Amino acid sequence: MKKLHVIKIGGNVIDEPKELEKFLSDFSRISDLKILVHGGGKVATELAKRLGIEQELVNGRRITDAETLKVTTMVYAGLINKQIVAALQSKKCNAIGLSGADANTINASKRKVKDIDYGFVGDIESSGVNVEMISVFLENDITPVFSAITHNGEGQLLNTNADTIASALAVALSKKYDVQLNYCFEKKGVLRDVEDDGSVINIITQNSYKDLLSEGVIFKGMIPKLDNAFDAIRNGVSAVMIAHSKDLITITNGNGNTGTKLIA
Amino acid sequence: MKKLHVIKIGGNVIDEPKELEKFLSDFSRISDLKILVHGGGKVATELAKRLGIEQELVNGRRITDAETLKVTTMVYAGLINKQIVAALQSKKCNAIGLSGADANTINASKRKVKDIDYGFVGDIESSGVNVEMISVFLENDITPVFSAITHNGEGQLLNTNADTIASALAVALSKKYDVQLNYCFEKKGVLRDVEDDGSVINIITQNSYKDLLSEGVIFKGMIPKLDNAFDAIRNGVSAVMIAHSKDLITITNGNGNTGTKLIA
Repeated sequence: MKKLHVIKIGGNVIDEPKELEKFLSDFSRISDLKILVHGGGKVATELAKRLGIEQELVNGRRITDAETLKVTTMVYAGLINKQIVAALQSKKCNAIGLSGADANTINASKRKVKDIDYGFVGDIESSGVNVEMISVFLENDITPVFSAITHNGEGQLLNTNADTIASALAVALSKKYDVQLNYCFEKKGVLRDVEDDGSVINIITQNSYKDLLSEGVIFKGMIPKLDNAFDAIRNGVSAVMIAHSKDLITITNGNGNTGTKLIA
Repeated sequence: MKKLHVIKIGGNVIDEPKELEKFLSDFSRISDLKILVHGGGKVATELAKRLGIEQELVNGRRITDAETLKVTTMVYAGLINKQIVAALQSKKCNAIGLSGADANTINASKRKVKDIDYGFVGDIESSGVNVEMISVFLENDITPVFSAITHNGEGQLLNTNADTIASALAVALSKKYDVQLNYCFEKKGVLRDVEDDGSVINIITQNSYKDLLSEGVIFKGMIPKLDNAFDAIRNGVSAVMIAHSKDLITITNGNGNTGTKLIA
């Protein structure tokens, strides 16, 4: 199996032009097959504010009404996606920007209303990732760059969490490739002490994760990320790395002392 | 050579949800290879207005400063492109939305400043269209949907007239395919009398075009469209149709009595 890196870049990196530039330079140098996944950072929130569209967050997730969907589609699939693609092209990486609607790469279902109506938010089922189509790109040396927008196959675009897109891609593509899933953000990894950048936990297993949870070491926003990551590992992904965006080259080269590595 | 239709859809159709829906249904039924090209209609102008970004038009062309480029990238390559792609997917047409940066499909150069500084506007040279890459999509039954955004290969996105993109694609792809270029808009063709929808001129040759120009029959906004069209014919495109968006099926089926057909 060919090695494939699925790499999620965090919003805080997207908000910093210099860090993003460095990250994209490093990304373009990865010689294995690769896929980039991004959300939108603060840009979508700022645009919504300028347009007077109120934004509501529940448990860190954006409630997506029709107007907010337009804003996220413009910012994620339009502005940020095309800026990233143009930057990668200038670095001789043959990137293609995609939403899940493009070439029907990712199908999702509108989240059912239980306690909360999340609006036009899409959840991806395991059959939702179009492995054959994404392989056409990879086998033609085209590097997919996914924005956090999917569709339901019936004409409706849907907002979908970028972490979830990355793990769904990683799991589905692990049938055909040896996939490493990499979450790159502004911290050096999962920290034992949020205030101390030197307290990176280098390896977390499914068992040690349970201990860290019960000890209260893992902080709030990190829990869905790690839950997703272990789901991915249980479903065929060979390893998940959580690391600083500056360490992309090191973690994709397999250096075990950088960032946090999640294993079964 | 396989038949290929390059189809430009006008902004006024994009602004009318019902007409757009009908047009996309017809488009999805074309069994030949096909490519769709679109601009943004009034949506970009309205968004710029809501954001307080002043828009300046010179000879019908938008002056594209940095803020305006962001707006057009969001609207053309983001919102409208993805809405069209999602709609086509729901009609079982395997569409992929592209800017010229995506898979490096269309390279352009920033227009040199002479009398007027158009800002981030790109002109396409004949070598700017990546025929091999676009063929990868066509040969894999993927239908490209181009927005009016290109790039210069050095990381800069550029605003590019959608009519120009359509003719540049048609000319470049005519080396490999039997290309018909179709401009679909809200009139039944080139009219002898702008006020009379029944006055469609069915055929215009290069010679009769000169006569129509000197008689003042061809109206202002139509001149660059027809100039582009005859350029395309001189450079390998087999025919150019100018017709109402409602007549898409008829003109792509080769019925000679609908719309205006331009020939050498």
